[in-house]
Amino acid sequence: MAKVLDEEGRDLLYRKARTHNVWLPRAVDDALLREAYDLAKWGPTSANMCPLRIVFVKSREAKEKLRPCLDAGNVDKTMAAPVTAVLGMDVHFYEKLPKLFPQADAKAWFKDLPAPILEYIALRNSSLQGAYFMLAARAVGLDCGPMSGFDNAKVDAAFFAGTSVKSNFLCNLGHGDPAKVYPRNPRLEFEEACKLV
Amino acid sequence: MAKVLDEEGRDLLYRKARTHNVWLPRAVDDALLREAYDLAKWGPTSANMCPLRIVFVKSREAKEKLRPCLDAGNVDKTMAAPVTAVLGMDVHFYEKLPKLFPQADAKAWFKDLPAPILEYIALRNSSLQGAYFMLAARAVGLDCGPMSGFDNAKVDAAFFAGTSVKSNFLCNLGHGDPAKVYPRNPRLEFEEACKLV
Repeated sequence: MAKVLDEEGRDLLYRKARTHNVWLPRAVDDALLREAYDLAKWGPTSANMCPLRIVFVKSREAKEKLRPCLDAGNVDKTMAAPVTAVLGMDVHFYEKLPKLFPQADAKAWFKDLPAPILEYIALRNSSLQGAYFMLAARAVGLDCGPMSGFDNAKVDAAFFAGTSVKSNFLCNLGHGDPAKVYPRNPRLEFEEACKLV
Repeated sequence: MAKVLDEEGRDLLYRKARTHNVWLPRAVDDALLREAYDLAKWGPTSANMCPLRIVFVKSREAKEKLRPCLDAGNVDKTMAAPVTAVLGMDVHFYEKLPKLFPQADAKAWFKDLPAPILEYIALRNSSLQGAYFMLAARAVGLDCGPMSGFDNAKVDAAFFAGTSVKSNFLCNLGHGDPAKVYPRNPRLEFEEACKLV
């Protein structure tokens, strides 16, 4: 008999988890961010390439660097969040493959690919890892508020200058106010999104 | 006190979950695929766009359509898997936004964007949903074997002809043989992948 996740776990990660926009004034210990990363890192990626890089923006100074990068509607909630994770992707992820995939010369499979292809691969795999991370954050008791509404080039200049990392998306982290979530929007039913053939 | 996922749940979804390549001869009930989708659908996407579309390939006939699309190293395990999920992305995801995001004219935000931008957005968000789905599959007791090693254009022609859906990645599903998994490869430590600022 295969093991399954219990109802509480399904509620915590999926069914009752909500995107948060209003944050309770409770600090987030760095140990909790490590705990979430140390779960998320185990999720699968192509050739174990693990392109996700995260900058956890916590200090007032770093938050002020982030402020001018944000769309107007995302400023207040992001400045108020205890932590904002900048989820980035290393488009030269292949440099880590000698460590991450030691059984073959996996670096050679990727290193000469054109830049747009590398970015496409990094986007796919860092997004997978971003999702592993958000569910892991929920698993350790944090709430998430992910966002795409920001200027990627400005975030790259502010947080990834001189590196091969590009921003993918942002995610506020903390303890959300459950009374302030929006009404939940519908999802696609199985028949609308899936087919069995 | 925030709720957290118990140790068994963390093991099931992350720490002890492995990518499988050898499948036990046990059928996968369609109800289990629905159960996994009905968890995965709750994960967040930009503007609730939900671009993921899945074709679950189960029949011998559909598996034979998939065979010529696969890289040589992925053929045997995929033909042997009880189910192969073709995870695709609808690059015209905005057509569903009047249902999915009824509080604003969200369709107008996206519908005139250039095709490469739409594909970039769909890739990000369908990959997030692909990760939600794989962890949900583990939550309902299935094992996963995700793959990027296939010809996307051939898969699109075989399974998404005449639609605005493009393939993202494949994932074998079933009950894996735990004795046949590969030794686990290392991951990046927190300090290698993350920064606190």
